[in-house]
Amino acid sequence: MSKGLLIVISSPSGGGKGTILKELFKRNENLRMSVSATTRAPRPGEEHGVHYFFISKEEFQKNIEDGAMLEYASYISNFYGTPKAPVEAWLNEGKDVILEIEVQGGRQIKQVAPDCVSLFVLPPSLEVLENRLRGRGTETDEVILKRLSAAREEIQCVKDYDYTVINDTVEQAVLDIEAIITAEKHRVSRDKTIVERILNHA
Amino acid sequence: MSKGLLIVISSPSGGGKGTILKELFKRNENLRMSVSATTRAPRPGEEHGVHYFFISKEEFQKNIEDGAMLEYASYISNFYGTPKAPVEAWLNEGKDVILEIEVQGGRQIKQVAPDCVSLFVLPPSLEVLENRLRGRGTETDEVILKRLSAAREEIQCVKDYDYTVINDTVEQAVLDIEAIITAEKHRVSRDKTIVERILNHA
Repeated sequence: MSKGLLIVISSPSGGGKGTILKELFKRNENLRMSVSATTRAPRPGEEHGVHYFFISKEEFQKNIEDGAMLEYASYISNFYGTPKAPVEAWLNEGKDVILEIEVQGGRQIKQVAPDCVSLFVLPPSLEVLENRLRGRGTETDEVILKRLSAAREEIQCVKDYDYTVINDTVEQAVLDIEAIITAEKHRVSRDKTIVERILNHA
Repeated sequence: MSKGLLIVISSPSGGGKGTILKELFKRNENLRMSVSATTRAPRPGEEHGVHYFFISKEEFQKNIEDGAMLEYASYISNFYGTPKAPVEAWLNEGKDVILEIEVQGGRQIKQVAPDCVSLFVLPPSLEVLENRLRGRGTETDEVILKRLSAAREEIQCVKDYDYTVINDTVEQAVLDIEAIITAEKHRVSRDKTIVERILNHA
């Protein structure tokens, strides 16, 4: 069995990544979602172990020291990171693992796992992004402006990614991500034994 | 309008590429098929200007000298090649152009057009390939053995290609090629202005 694909997905906050991923998982049984650890407080409806592992700053620091984090980053005074063990186990089982991470984390992953596939989900425009952030109704004006300013910076990091996906409609974005995953599984550089297998097949 | 994608597709003879391409074109209106020039004789049912431009060796040589060929190669004592002008015109119109060429030609295209996408369509095994060649009923035993021997060599060239597609069923192979085309259109390296467009969109 071949190893799974490690898929990094980043997006400015409010980019609509959550809805896209929900639909993507509904349609693809071989996908697994890496659950991040974070020190930020849960938002309404977020569950420990499902959306995030909500842990203390002390616990997070200990994980870093133990080498148990694949990547980590700080964002608006909190830590976010990816516990290493479950990701490696799934990849070895042939599952494709999605890491939904900030751009700082995305860069770290490319360094430790250069064969990952990285996608940046973009809003069609900053205006659309702002409307989506306001539509949530969970943030103050101050936080929204801070996020928009952060988004403007984050979008500059597109150049460090392999692919962009425009989140205009959820359906189209999901189809695009599925196509990227399918294509990557056909890359010659990911399958060193294909010639042998074809030539020596009984 | 963005430029079209130049897609190189190679396969051992008898790999079933013809059937796959027919289905691919039926389903994708933005595709154009580069019609190759060749000095070999037409097979039953092949039409000039549709399957190939059947031209003399003298005419082919003149095209090479005039710089009018994107690539050319010789195979079993005949010339095969790609006239340059129609390919360039289609790409500029935003059409995706498929070049169905031998591995020698595929290498040349990668040199003159490094941003092309190259696919190698593989039979599931050499045995399946042999059965398909015999099933055609158009070749002598001698030619079939020559083609199988050539196929064994050609398959070694997979390493020079970007993607492999296994022709197990036509439907699956077509879906895989469509996914590869879609994915490549989302590559960051193909769209230098995307960040500007998102940030400056009215």
